Parts: sequence; structure tokens; C-alpha cells
Amino acid sequence: MPLPERSGTLLIRGGTIQTAESALRADILVRDGIIAAIGDGLDTSGADVLDAGGLLVIPGGIDPHTHMEMPFMGEVSSDDFRTGTEAAVAGGTTMIIDFAIPEPGGSLIEAWRVWSERAKKAVCDYAFHVCVTHWSASVASEMETLVRDHGVNSFKHFMAYKGALMVDDGVLLSSVGHALSLGALCNVHAENGDAVAHLQKTLLERGITGPKGHPLSRPPSVEGEAAQRIIAIADVLGAPIYIVHVSTADATDAIGRARANGQRVFGEVLAQHLVIDDSVYDTDDFRSAAAHVMSPPFRPKSHQAKLWAGLANGTLQTTATDHCCFCAPQKANGRDDFTKIPNGTPGIEDRMSVLWHHGVRTGRLTPAEFVAVTSTNTAKIFNIHPRKGNVSVGADADLVLWDPNGTRTISAATHHQRVDYNVFEGMEVTGLARTTIAGGHVVWHENQLHTVPGSGRYVARPPFAPICFPHADTGAAG
Amino acid sequence: MPLPERSGTLLIRGGTIQTAESALRADILVRDGIIAAIGDGLDTSGADVLDAGGLLVIPGGIDPHTHMEMPFMGEVSSDDFRTGTEAAVAGGTTMIIDFAIPEPGGSLIEAWRVWSERAKKAVCDYAFHVCVTHWSASVASEMETLVRDHGVNSFKHFMAYKGALMVDDGVLLSSVGHALSLGALCNVHAENGDAVAHLQKTLLERGITGPKGHPLSRPPSVEGEAAQRIIAIADVLGAPIYIVHVSTADATDAIGRARANGQRVFGEVLAQHLVIDDSVYDTDDFRSAAAHVMSPPFRPKSHQAKLWAGLANGTLQTTATDHCCFCAPQKANGRDDFTKIPNGTPGIEDRMSVLWHHGVRTGRLTPAEFVAVTSTNTAKIFNIHPRKGNVSVGADADLVLWDPNGTRTISAATHHQRVDYNVFEGMEVTGLARTTIAGGHVVWHENQLHTVPGSGRYVARPPFAPICFPHADTGAAG
Amino acid sequence: MPLPERSGTLLIRGGTIQTAESALRADILVRDGIIAAIGDGLDTSGADVLDAGGLLVIPGGIDPHTHMEMPFMGEVSSDDFRTGTEAAVAGGTTMIIDFAIPEPGGSLIEAWRVWSERAKKAVCDYAFHVCVTHWSASVASEMETLVRDHGVNSFKHFMAYKGALMVDDGVLLSSVGHALSLGALCNVHAENGDAVAHLQKTLLERGITGPKGHPLSRPPSVEGEAAQRIIAIADVLGAPIYIVHVSTADATDAIGRARANGQRVFGEVLAQHLVIDDSVYDTDDFRSAAAHVMSPPFRPKSHQAKLWAGLANGTLQTTATDHCCFCAPQKANGRDDFTKIPNGTPGIEDRMSVLWHHGVRTGRLTPAEFVAVTSTNTAKIFNIHPRKGNVSVGADADLVLWDPNGTRTISAATHHQRVDYNVFEGMEVTGLARTTIAGGHVVWHENQLHTVPGSGRYVARPPFAPICFPHADTGAAG
Amino acid sequence: MPLPERSGTLLIRGGTIQTAESALRADILVRDGIIAAIGDGLDTSGADVLDAGGLLVIPGGIDPHTHMEMPFMGEVSSDDFRTGTEAAVAGGTTMIIDFAIPEPGGSLIEAWRVWSERAKKAVCDYAFHVCVTHWSASVASEMETLVRDHGVNSFKHFMAYKGALMVDDGVLLSSVGHALSLGALCNVHAENGDAVAHLQKTLLERGITGPKGHPLSRPPSVEGEAAQRIIAIADVLGAPIYIVHVSTADATDAIGRARANGQRVFGEVLAQHLVIDDSVYDTDDFRSAAAHVMSPPFRPKSHQAKLWAGLANGTLQTTATDHCCFCAPQKANGRDDFTKIPNGTPGIEDRMSVLWHHGVRTGRLTPAEFVAVTSTNTAKIFNIHPRKGNVSVGADADLVLWDPNGTRTISAATHHQRVDYNVFEGMEVTGLARTTIAGGHVVWHENQLHTVPGSGRYVARPPFAPICFPHADTGAAG
Repeated sequence: MPLPERSGTLLIRGGTIQTAESALRADILVRDGIIAAIGDGLDTSGADVLDAGGLLVIPGGIDPHTHMEMPFMGEVSSDDFRTGTEAAVAGGTTMIIDFAIPEPGGSLIEAWRVWSERAKKAVCDYAFHVCVTHWSASVASEMETLVRDHGVNSFKHFMAYKGALMVDDGVLLSSVGHALSLGALCNVHAENGDAVAHLQKTLLERGITGPKGHPLSRPPSVEGEAAQRIIAIADVLGAPIYIVHVSTADATDAIGRARANGQRVFGEVLAQHLVIDDSVYDTDDFRSAAAHVMSPPFRPKSHQAKLWAGLANGTLQTTATDHCCFCAPQKANGRDDFTKIPNGTPGIEDRMSVLWHHGVRTGRLTPAEFVAVTSTNTAKIFNIHPRKGNVSVGADADLVLWDPNGTRTISAATHHQRVDYNVFEGMEVTGLARTTIAGGHVVWHENQLHTVPGSGRYVARPPFAPICFPHADTGAAG
Repeated sequence: MPLPERSGTLLIRGGTIQTAESALRADILVRDGIIAAIGDGLDTSGADVLDAGGLLVIPGGIDPHTHMEMPFMGEVSSDDFRTGTEAAVAGGTTMIIDFAIPEPGGSLIEAWRVWSERAKKAVCDYAFHVCVTHWSASVASEMETLVRDHGVNSFKHFMAYKGALMVDDGVLLSSVGHALSLGALCNVHAENGDAVAHLQKTLLERGITGPKGHPLSRPPSVEGEAAQRIIAIADVLGAPIYIVHVSTADATDAIGRARANGQRVFGEVLAQHLVIDDSVYDTDDFRSAAAHVMSPPFRPKSHQAKLWAGLANGTLQTTATDHCCFCAPQKANGRDDFTKIPNGTPGIEDRMSVLWHHGVRTGRLTPAEFVAVTSTNTAKIFNIHPRKGNVSVGADADLVLWDPNGTRTISAATHHQRVDYNVFEGMEVTGLARTTIAGGHVVWHENQLHTVPGSGRYVARPPFAPICFPHADTGAAG
Repeated sequence: MPLPERSGTLLIRGGTIQTAESALRADILVRDGIIAAIGDGLDTSGADVLDAGGLLVIPGGIDPHTHMEMPFMGEVSSDDFRTGTEAAVAGGTTMIIDFAIPEPGGSLIEAWRVWSERAKKAVCDYAFHVCVTHWSASVASEMETLVRDHGVNSFKHFMAYKGALMVDDGVLLSSVGHALSLGALCNVHAENGDAVAHLQKTLLERGITGPKGHPLSRPPSVEGEAAQRIIAIADVLGAPIYIVHVSTADATDAIGRARANGQRVFGEVLAQHLVIDDSVYDTDDFRSAAAHVMSPPFRPKSHQAKLWAGLANGTLQTTATDHCCFCAPQKANGRDDFTKIPNGTPGIEDRMSVLWHHGVRTGRLTPAEFVAVTSTNTAKIFNIHPRKGNVSVGADADLVLWDPNGTRTISAATHHQRVDYNVFEGMEVTGLARTTIAGGHVVWHENQLHTVPGSGRYVARPPFAPICFPHADTGAAG
Repeated sequence: MPLPERSGTLLIRGGTIQTAESALRADILVRDGIIAAIGDGLDTSGADVLDAGGLLVIPGGIDPHTHMEMPFMGEVSSDDFRTGTEAAVAGGTTMIIDFAIPEPGGSLIEAWRVWSERAKKAVCDYAFHVCVTHWSASVASEMETLVRDHGVNSFKHFMAYKGALMVDDGVLLSSVGHALSLGALCNVHAENGDAVAHLQKTLLERGITGPKGHPLSRPPSVEGEAAQRIIAIADVLGAPIYIVHVSTADATDAIGRARANGQRVFGEVLAQHLVIDDSVYDTDDFRSAAAHVMSPPFRPKSHQAKLWAGLANGTLQTTATDHCCFCAPQKANGRDDFTKIPNGTPGIEDRMSVLWHHGVRTGRLTPAEFVAVTSTNTAKIFNIHPRKGNVSVGADADLVLWDPNGTRTISAATHHQRVDYNVFEGMEVTGLARTTIAGGHVVWHENQLHTVPGSGRYVARPPFAPICFPHADTGAAG
């Protein structure tokens, strides 16, 4: 089937619409980038037609955790907003939320501006979490401005990376409390940075300088501890909290306990942690081991069952990738000292397939749950639902024609990510994006990109998401 | 506003559609009992118009646990399918799932027929769980027939009521395993009937014959034990399981642990248990105490927080009432022996208001979560979604115009339930059904019933619900 | 060093007395089978002298779970009370508690008499748990007689072995409640017999007839369920409870939760389960696999850490062996049907060494904890402390000169157990009994037995052990 | 009975020796401050005789957490080492472990010297935990000296008191790791000081300046968080850890989880927290509320059951008092600002009676467990067993003739503590010290003190306690 022209009107015909709620066989009419109608026998005069026979039509994936062209550990991550989002749409993801990180002691708004500039070449929609890396009256004021004027409703904090991005509990208390008053949700990288620094030092002193030292310096309890700490801090403040890249049973259990007590705690898990374990560090091949250096590191296999169960039972709500690419020459900075290996792995192009293959086909997740954890829940938590993460009249036409039975083999040789390896290399997956529609435009079809740099739009996110702030929402309903 | 005539076409104008997913300001066009369109500027020529300004339009409540005109403990529950469903629609509930209970050793299909006959006077839609109270090849065969030919996809089992309805673990294993093969979901009343019988005997021997003996004979651990047992049995079989009327922290924790390990366990909680505690038995007024005799009994107040948290965090998915009315003369059978008090309390008319008032207005639940736990989740679990529990084109027009700010005082003096007391007597609640539409007909409007006995329909439920049987569903998507 | 003559007086010189409390370098004077003095410079005229230099002197091990010459599954276990206790003392165990099992529907007192007769040839002290396998007024009366007149303070119940030894919850409630009133402690084999029977049937129907079916028919959740059930039953009754052969994380966690709520629950673990996992069934060698058929079966390796931690943290208090030997020809009964393989493994001779080697030398247990879990805790729970399980003046001279650094290789070729295999075959262990003294007599010395059949005595155990019945004890202290 | 003369030899006759292990009717001969013999028919020529008929003879209590004449919050605690230890022996406690606290940035050894000087007037034995309040090479070096030369085997850290005693995770990691290498055990006050400071500031800003603000500024989750954090830090280092004054279910659960995973974590609970709840702050009487200001504060009553269960099941091992007295004029410093109320309550005189009355007489603890948690466990953990916490030949003659049925009413009017209130005021307790013997001398008898200032001795404590360092101990046994 040839690619339809970029017209104002598009008909997706013959597919099964699979949302986070249910499945429905119906056609979809897209007009001006918006879903205009759903049903049978729609008036489709003049519309380009996409045949979705045998396919599912799902809301485009949303990846709430990426780092495009980020300066980090002396390098800049290799995927920029164009290449990174091209890889995204090739895999069925149509929106990312990246992180705007201030200079040390610097302005949050300025960081937001810098990242906004970089993102102008994106081929799908995007937004930014803004990082709080220190505390002052000025930071508090900038947070307010970002929420009020710039469509930011989430702030990120690092409990790790001592001496760099890490903030202490005092900053966390101030920032999370302030964000609550603004209707913004705080995100946290939960690892005890003091413990990591102590272990790094100890390991290096003992002569453990290779990548094997990386997971040893960040054992599961270091993540579990920080998760419990931020949960307690949020509890003291009565604030919701969102923990990024949960990789351990320890942190999953901590979230589960808090939720069992009625606390609003959210957890994100990376596609990578769901299927790759710490055996990747058991090699003398520096390049291969270093390629897998990310934080949190890969974990003993036993943790994976807890993560999958967490997604199925609602303890963990979202999946992401922490997509952050560094090529072999960049990774080589840490050849003699694992603490100098730029942290990060690619993932954005393959998340959806990995989740379908290892989640749905194994029976761990229903198709509805797949949509929930790859798109809908993220949209709700970050308050862009029902515009995003949804297939309903009036929603943005970010749609994927998903082939549940299509098969491909993941490889750096064929992927669109600008990085020289793939952590899923050689994995044969069933479930893939036949066609991706972003903002009403077909951007990926029949294994070809049809993207236009800059066609992605910044998505302003209003504060006080219902899922986090039930009180505020109740009043609004009246 | 006068009631619209019963016409084929109805326009609900100006409301906010609140689903389990999100809120949307849009009109709804109902034609022939079905939602025909959702949007603005709909073609409404000839339609009757309902003004929903300032109101939420929600899917009608589904109560998955009622006992209308049930013979039990020597009496028959006082609400029949007409009066019981009239009370339902007055409160915003538009479908019930009742229980067909065979005679001792009797035919399941015959029980289904008897209940089908009784239900013909219902004023809203209904279905039946069928009870398995013994085991034989004939029972197995009847289960298959019920699933294949009679639209039954759920079977109920009692672990309590020794010498009457109770089944032992051997029956549970056989029945749950067989149901799994049929694509049906098993429901379980989880209390250890041996322990209850032992404690009843001990208490009576000690001279404790009044209603205070009732909660003493059924302590929380008796429920927690049975919940853990049926969860283990389901785990051994690889079957999903649904536990009715979870009333304790013990059972909630057991479900939570199973779900944390990836097991598909579902839990239902009654509106009554959420807000009433065991202090109701601390009285010498037999009539009042006996009125509250139900199983499981009301619990120490500390359990309630766990139940609310369970609904918010997804450990418990549905709310029900176990609506089972006995008037004072019936309850008096147990004046000299608490074990002879017919078990049951009313609730169907007030569940929705109680959930909104104590759930949404306190911030425990978002409005979307309210819809989920009163309607949508039940529809999904019992596989009648998206026809029920949903506001989408093609769905049944079971809708409620919900006034989130309307206030009423609950009382037996004014309720529509055919019973001489109300466990919520005197409770002032905010949140009520202004108008209830069942199958496209306005059946409750401006505090008046407009019901037609027999207008309710039996809802056949297909097997293999996606939420329970992800494997089967996966294949279907292809 | 030659063996001292059997004299009335024995001096153990130069050792370190290691108790469950502490370590002390002191000599011990034994007179008339009793510890007469502890200290330095003791008056030792006429005493035989044992040199304990470089050795620990510990209380002899107590194995609270053995089955000597037991008729079971059509066979009789191959070790009788002489050979079994000879193996015991060779390994450092100086007392066993065996099980007296009535005929179906038969007399408990008669069972006690039969076992008493069999045990007359024992070479170390012994006692009996008496099994309750049905319920009647006569059983209740016999329990009382056994407690009052026969020195029995513990009764055993099987939740498994459906159609044979298994009792239902009604019997458990009656028996545990009655035992409580008598000051006796109930023991329970916790596996859900209905589930086992169901799974056995299913597996055989599927053609799985070999030993691999054994662990499949008894998964961990079947044990966890039963543990939770008996704990709930004991909680309802306010009774202490003792769970034999805890083999899973599931059951350990259940005990831990109960203890965290203040309940008096005790757990026993077998030496075999601590170090052998279910990989023993992964073989086509019927003889080898069948040799390991016992109930509960060997478990996935991950369970072992929980068991060890349970011993160290006090959740599990005792170690045993469930010593129950069947030789290859006996095991062969189940060649075509795994459910017919006589259940049981040997262990009594090696428990102490296995616990020291894998427990103390790995740092999991302190030497004091080793003594506690091999001897002292058992003596306390079954109310024979300080007479047993102790090194103090007035205590029975059941002592072991333990070489913490001595090494031996376990093998059926050299063991004293009357059975043709050893589950620890080939295991090299450090830590062994150099000399064993039972009732003041040296019965094992320099790798030689010096036993006299019939020298073992029946140990009457009084009711109301302080560790189980604090109320009763409190009064007694006044 | 008149008081025996201070002679070299004392016979305690007719009592029941109750240890942490068992009860034994026997006499005790004390010579030169040491237990010389235990038994019947002892050679007692020349001995003074104490009649212990009807009494228990127990090891003297050890209070591991006191603050005598400590400069704190601008005041000095009112009990000095003489008055404080006089109160101790009057209540049956014969040893304390106090805290030596360096000046800000100051020398640990100097602190140890200052406290050693102050303690010279003590009337019973004592030792010191030394506090680490900052980190440097000098601190590390001083720790080593204290362990090697000064008999210190425990170091204390504060995670609370921001800006004063509080240390951050980096210091904790360094200090706990270093202590491990020295064979010393680290103690931790577990409250998140950042959170406390944040809440104090917020509360004061909201105008909450009275004592009611104190518990609001230190909610249970603040303690639970810190407990989990230090447990994770200890886990990372492989170090044992001891958490002082555990007052919440949160922290108890955290310890329980760690122990279930095999970690060596110890917990101490104060007599005050076991029986007093946070209702003490619900008063407008500043003096009364301020008198109860201590950290952690008193908690909602529901926490107490978990603490008692923790003592019974071994999750918590020791009881203490954090005895730290400030009189009303001192407490008045915080009349306008609750953060300025000197923290602390008295308790040392009444701990033993409170534990017996509320622990043993209610059936929560056996008499043996009472001895364990008031004395023996502390001696083991801090490696002074069997010299202390024990009734055996060779042990220090620190003994109490305990009347399990004697009754007294606690009151500031009669107590020996130098403070003008008693948190147990008016409590009638059963169980009291009839006679206290410290170092072989009768120091309390028939309600009279017979103390000699300065008769108390410093107890040097060797490193590498077996209960903490099983590996080290194993080697020593060989």
C-alpha cells in the first residue's frame, strides 16, 4: 500500500481500536490532526484511506523519560531531538517527555528555554520535566512561573549523582512541598547518592575499576532505601510522588506498601530493566559491558517478575526508556574507571515491541494493560489526557497501526537510533508498528520514515492532574 | 423540568461526561436504547432533551452482588426483583448481578431458570452468578451448558455456612479448575465455615446468644484465612479468582500480596463495610443489632482505611452491596440465638451516594475512580464492557445524570427498598442521581420513579473476559 | 585416647562449654548421669577423664521429628529405635521425639503403648508426640489421660495425606482447643491435602507418573496455604502452634507475620531442606529421584535463604530431620506411580554437622545459635528444659564434645543409618561429634559406638511449657 | 529482715533463680563480688544470708540508654551519675550505658574522659557509647583508640537534631564501615532530621508553638524512614546495626523485614513508649505536656502492640529508658516555642516494674523473656555476657531479689530520681525489687538505699561480640 498523501483528512479503516479500556472494531476519521469521528459508515469523502485490517489501532506510545542531546559526564548524548524522535515514531511512540536541566546553580527557566530550542527539530510532540538541582527563593519563584506560564507540571529531582545533580532531603522537602502548592508532580531518581559515592570509592580503592564495579556500587538496597525515603518525605507533606526507573523488587515493594496505606505514589519502569539482567556485566569485553552502564544498573533476574507484576497490578503505572545514548568512543572515557563511563542506554525505538512481546504474548499483560502502561497512564499522570493517550473524538491523532503478529529482529544495524549498539540486539520480537501517525500525519509506514523535522509541537501541561489531586478535581466537576 | 416522553431518541445536553478514564464536556444522543452519538452540535431533530447542565453524566452503576427474593435461613429476602431494581435506579444503579442458588444437591440450570423467572419483573438489566454448592459430573456438565447456552460466565462458591451452602477445598479445586477451562470466573465468599461453626457453638455454650455473638463468631482472621486459602487454590490452578465482600485488612493484604506476585485476584467491597463499623453491635436493642447482622459482619473501624486504600490503589476493584433485606419480624427469628438471625442488610439504593460522599468528597477517590469502582471495573471483570460500564457510541444507554453537589438524607422513611430500616439511617450525603436512564428510558427523574416492571433485560455474558484471560484475548486481537 | 570405663563419675576437662547463651572455658563433672559440677579445680577423685582440649562441649542435639520403624504407605521405615538412635548419637544427637500414630479410628493410648514398646531398644532418651487423626469424645479423653498420666505434652496433626492421616479444620479446631486446655502444644504438618490429591490426580491423568510429579503435586503455595490456615485457627483459639518441617518462604513469611502480631507460632526446619534443592528431581534415574521423595518436597533454591534467616532471627526455632528411611526396594513400590513412593529421607546422623558446616562456618549462625536451634529451643518448647538442652548443674549429662574444625565426608558407605543411601552423599563437612555422652555414658567415641540397647529412657514431658503458656508460668513464679 | 553487713560473702537462700533461659530453685553464694556457687547445701560458713523465699533472683537490669548530667539544649539533665544510679538500683537496674558526646567538632577521647570523670560517683557499674557527630581521619583514629585501649565497643550516631548532633549519610557510611572493621557496633537515633526541621519551621510559621507541635513535627513516618535508611546503609556495608528507642510500628516493621532477609539488626524500645501514648499532648497544661516532650515523641496507641510483639518475637531485643531528666523550670525554656523544650523524660527507676507489670502479668512476655529484654540481651549485644546479664558461677554478683507479686504506686513524691515529675505518676504496678545487689553489695533493701558513691565501676567492653560477628566468633571457638 502506498503512503497516503499528507492531506487534511485520513480514514483508518478496518482496524480494531484497542484502548486502555477495551477493544472495538470501528473506523477512525482524522481531520486537521484531530480524531474527528469513530464508527462505521463514516462520511469519508476526500479522505486518504489507511487499511488497518488485521491490525490494532492504539494510542501512540508516550515515553515520559528521555534524554536527547543532553550534556552529561563530559559528553553529549548522541541522539538529538530529531534522530531520537524519528526512532520513537519508527517504534510506535509519538510523544516524549524530556528533562530540562539547569546549569549548576542556574536558572530553571533558562534551562527550559535551552531545551525548548533544542527540541524544535523534533518530529513528534514533546514536553519537559524541569530539574530542581538546588534550592533558593529564586528556584521557588521560577517553578511557579514555569507552571503558570510555560506548561510545566512536573519537576525532577536526583537523589543520586553526589557532587553533581544530587539534592539532599532538605531540598526535597522544600521542592516537593512547593510543587504541591503549585499543582505540579515531583519525579525522583531514587538512589542513595552518598552510598553510591562511598561504594565507588571503596571499589576503586580495592582495584575494581572495570564496568563490573558499576552494579556493585549501586546494589538494589541503595535504590530501595531512596524510594522509601522519598515516599516518607512525600507522606509527611501529603504530596503525590512519581519515582522514575524503578528497577528493583525493593523499590516496587516500597511503593506497594505506601499505596496499600492509601498514599498516591507512582512508579515508572524501563523496558530495558524488564528483560535484561545483570549478567551483561559478566564479561571481559569492556565495550559490551560499558554499553550497559546505566543507573540504576541491570539487576539480578529475580527482580523482573516483581516489575512485571507491578505493571499488571497497578503498583507501577508507566513504562519508559531513560533513552540516553552514548557511542563506544564516549563510553571509552571510563575504560580505566567505571565511574567515568557515561551512564545511559538506548531504548526508545524498541520499548513498544519489547512490552508487547514479553508482556502481552506471555500473558503478563492484557492488550488494554499494554496501552495503559505504554501511553494512557502517562497521559493521565502528566495531565494531558484525554488529548493524549487515548482514541476518542477530539483527541490528538497520535495513533499507531499495531501488528500484533508482525515479527522483527532488533539490531543496531537497522535501528534509527543514532548510537552504535542496541541492548536488545538480536532479540526477535512479535508485535510492531506498521504505521505511525503523529498529529494526524503518517510519519512511519511500511518500514519507512516520512517525518518532517520540526513538525513536533511542545505540549503544555496544565497543573493539578486529577489522578494526583482528587480534591481539586472534585470541585471542578461541580 | 417535566419528564421527556418515552421516545426513541433522547438528547442529554450540557453535561460533563465522566468516565473511568476522563471527563469531557459533550452532549449525548441516545437512540433505540443505545448511545448513538457523542459530541457537540449533534443532529437532534425529534429528540427529547434532558438538560444536564451542572451535572456529570456517568455510566449507570452496576451492583455485582444482590440477593432479591432469596429463600435463606427460613425466610425470603423482602425485596423482589421489581422493588429491588426500583430502589437501584432511584440510587443510580442500572444493572445488578444476582445469584442463582440450586436446591441442596439440585440442578444449577434449574436454579438459573427459577431465578430467571423471578427476575422477569425487573426494571433494569440483570444477570446471574450461578452457585456451585456441591460437585458431580452433572454439575460440571451443567456449568458448561450455562456458559455455552445461557450467558453465564461466573460461578459462586461459599467457604462459609457449614452444613448448608459451604463447599470444601476439594469442590473448590474441581470447580475453579473446570470454570477456568470454560472461561468463567469463580467468585468466593471467603470465611472459614468450620471456624465459624466452632465459634458459634462455643459462644452459645457460654450463654452468648444475642447479636453480639455474631461478630465474635466471625473474627477478621476467619475471613483472612479463607481469602488466603482460595488465593492459594487459584494459584495452584493458574486461575483468576474474585473474592466477594472483602471486609478486612487481613483479606485485603492477602489479595495485595498475591497481586504483587503477579496473580490475577479481584476483590469486591461493600458500601456498608466502608463506612459502618462493629460498634453497631454494642447495644442492647436487639432490633437494631440484628438489623446489622450480615456476613461478614461489620468490623473494627481500623479496617476501613485499608478498604478505601484498596479501592484507590487497585487491589480492590469493585463495590457492591450484598443487598439482602429482612424486616424486623424476620430478623426476630434469632431473638434467642444469634445464629438464627437471617443474615443480610439493604444497600442498593444508597451505594452510589455513599461512595461519592465518603469517597470522592474526602479525596480518597477521583471522580474517574468512582466510576471505575461503581461500574466500569465490574463490567470489565464480568465481560460486558464496553456494552456496560461505559459512555461510548454503541454502548447501552444506561446513564445517570449525577449531581455532585446535591444533598439528601438517607432514611427508611423515604427509601424505595422494601425493608423497614436502613443501615445508613440519618446519614446526610452529597452526591445523588438526578436522573437515571436504563436501556434508553428515563426511569428515575426529579425524585420520581418512572419504571415499567419487566423492562429490564437479561444480559448474557460471554466467557473469557480479557481482564482475566490475557492469553485468550491476545490471540483474538490478531 | 582410650574410652573411659563406664563409671559413675566422669570429668570432661579442658573444653569450652558452648551453650545457647554463651561460651565458657570450664570443666564438667558428671555423676550418676547428671551434671554434678561445672568449674575449675573440681574434686575429681575417682573420675574417669575425657580430654576436651580444643573442643566445644555442647548439649546433645535433640531431634524433635523422627519416624523409627513406622508403618507407612505399605512399608515400615527401615531404621528401628536401636539403629536410628545409634545413628543419632554418632552424629551428636542424644534425644529424639518420635510420633505415635493410632490405627485408623484407633486408640491414642494404644498407639502410645505400641511405640513405647518399640522404643525400648533405644540407645538414647526419647519421647513421643501422639497423633490425632480423627475426633471423638474418646479421643478427647485419651488426650487428657496422655497428658496427665503418660508425660505427653504435644499432639500432632496432618493437614495432608487425604484419605489417610489428614484431618479437616473441624478436627483441628476441636483438638487444638482441647490441647490448649490441657497445656499441650499442637504440631501440624502443613500442606493442603485436598490440593495435593487434586494435583496428583491431574498429573497422573496427564501421564506424569515418575518422581518429577512429586514436587509438582506439592508446590510451595500448598504449604504456605496450610501454614496460614493453621495459624488462623490457632489465633481464633488463642493457642500456640508448632509447624513441623517448614520448607518454604511462603510458610516462613506466614509465621513471621503472625509473630509480628504477637502470636505464639513456632516453626521447625529440616537439615535436608536447608541445603538440598529441587534439582534432585531433575534426573531420569528413578532410584536417585525416588530417594529424595519426601513431603514437603525439596524446593527451589531461593527458599533456603529465608529458612536460614528464619533460624537466625528467631522466626524458626528448631531443626529436625523427619528421619524416615526407606531403602531402594521399598521406594520401588512407586516406580509406576510417584504417589506410591514411600515418603521420607534419612538425616538424623548428619543434622548437627550440616548445621555447623553450612550454618556456623558461613556466618549465618553464631555457635550459640547453633546450640539453640539444634537442642535448647526444642527442650524449651517441649518443656524438658533445663533438664535437657542445657549444660548446667543438675541437668542430664547429655553432652557432645564437638570438634568445630574436624572434617568428614558424609556417605551411605560409612553411616550408621540402616538405609542404602544418604541425601548428603559426598558432602564434606567441617564440624563433628568427637565424643557423645548420653545419660552420663560415653556412647560414641573416636568413631566407635559404645551403645547399650535399651539404655535410652522415656522422657516424660510436663504440660504448660513457659514459652507457650506465659500466663500459667507467671502464676507459678510467685 | 535487717540488712546484712557488707561482708565478703553473701548467701541468697530459698529463691527461684530466673534467667533468660529457665527457672531453677537454688541458693547462690556470692564471694568478692562474684557468684561463687549455685546449688543446694552450699558451704556457707561465715556468709551473710539473704532470704529470697517467695522471690525470684534475676540478673540486675541493664539500661543501655541513659543521659546523666548531660548538657543539652542549653540545660544539663538533672540526674547526675550518683542520683541517677541510685534511682537505678532502687528499681532493680545494676548497670547503665551512658553516652559520651564530644563538643562540636571535638575529640571523642576527650568526651570519653569527661564522662568518665562525671561517672566516678556512680553507685553501680557503667559504660559509655561514644558519639560520632562528625567525620575526619582524627575521628577514625580516635575510634580505634577507644576500642583498643578504652573498652568501648559501640558508637552512637544521630540522624536527627539538624544543625547540632545530626550526621549525614556520608558520615554514617564512613563511621559504620570503620566501626565494623574495629569490631564495634553502631547505634543510631533514627529520625529524619531534615524532615523534623522542615516540619518544625512549618508548624511555627503556622503559629503552632506549644507542645502539641512536638509530635506533629516528628510523625511516625519520619522515624520509619530513618530506620529503613540506616538499615540499608548497614546492609550495603555488611555491618550489624542497633537502633535505639524504636517507638513505631513503622520502624519495627522495617527491622522485621531486614531480619527476615537475614540481616543482623537490633532494636531497643523504651519502657515509656510501651505504655504511654500521644494523648499526653492533648492538654493545655504546658507543664504536663512539656514534661512528656522527648524524641521520638509518644505515639498513637496502636503502635504499642507492635512494640510488645517485637519484644516477644525477637525483632526487638532490649529495653531502655533514654533516661534524661529536666525539671519544670528547664522545660519552661520552650514555653513559647516547642522546639526549645529540652527533650527527655525520666524512667530508669521504673523500667523493670513497668515491664513486669505490663509485660509478664499480661502474658505478653514470659519471665525468661522479661530477663532477656531487661538485661541478658543487652549484655550479649554489647559483649559483656556472661559477666553481666546472667546468673552463673563466675559472673558479677549483680542480682535482684524480685518480688513478682509485690505492689507499689509510682510517684515523683517517692521516687529517687532527681526530677520533679514522673511519666508513670499514679501507676500501680505489681513486680518490684525487694533487694538489689550490685557488685556483691546490697545497695537497696527493704525500700532503703545503702549505696556508696563511687562504688560503681567502669565496665570495659571487648569488641567483636558473638551476636554481631559470627564469623569472628567461630574462629575463636576452635
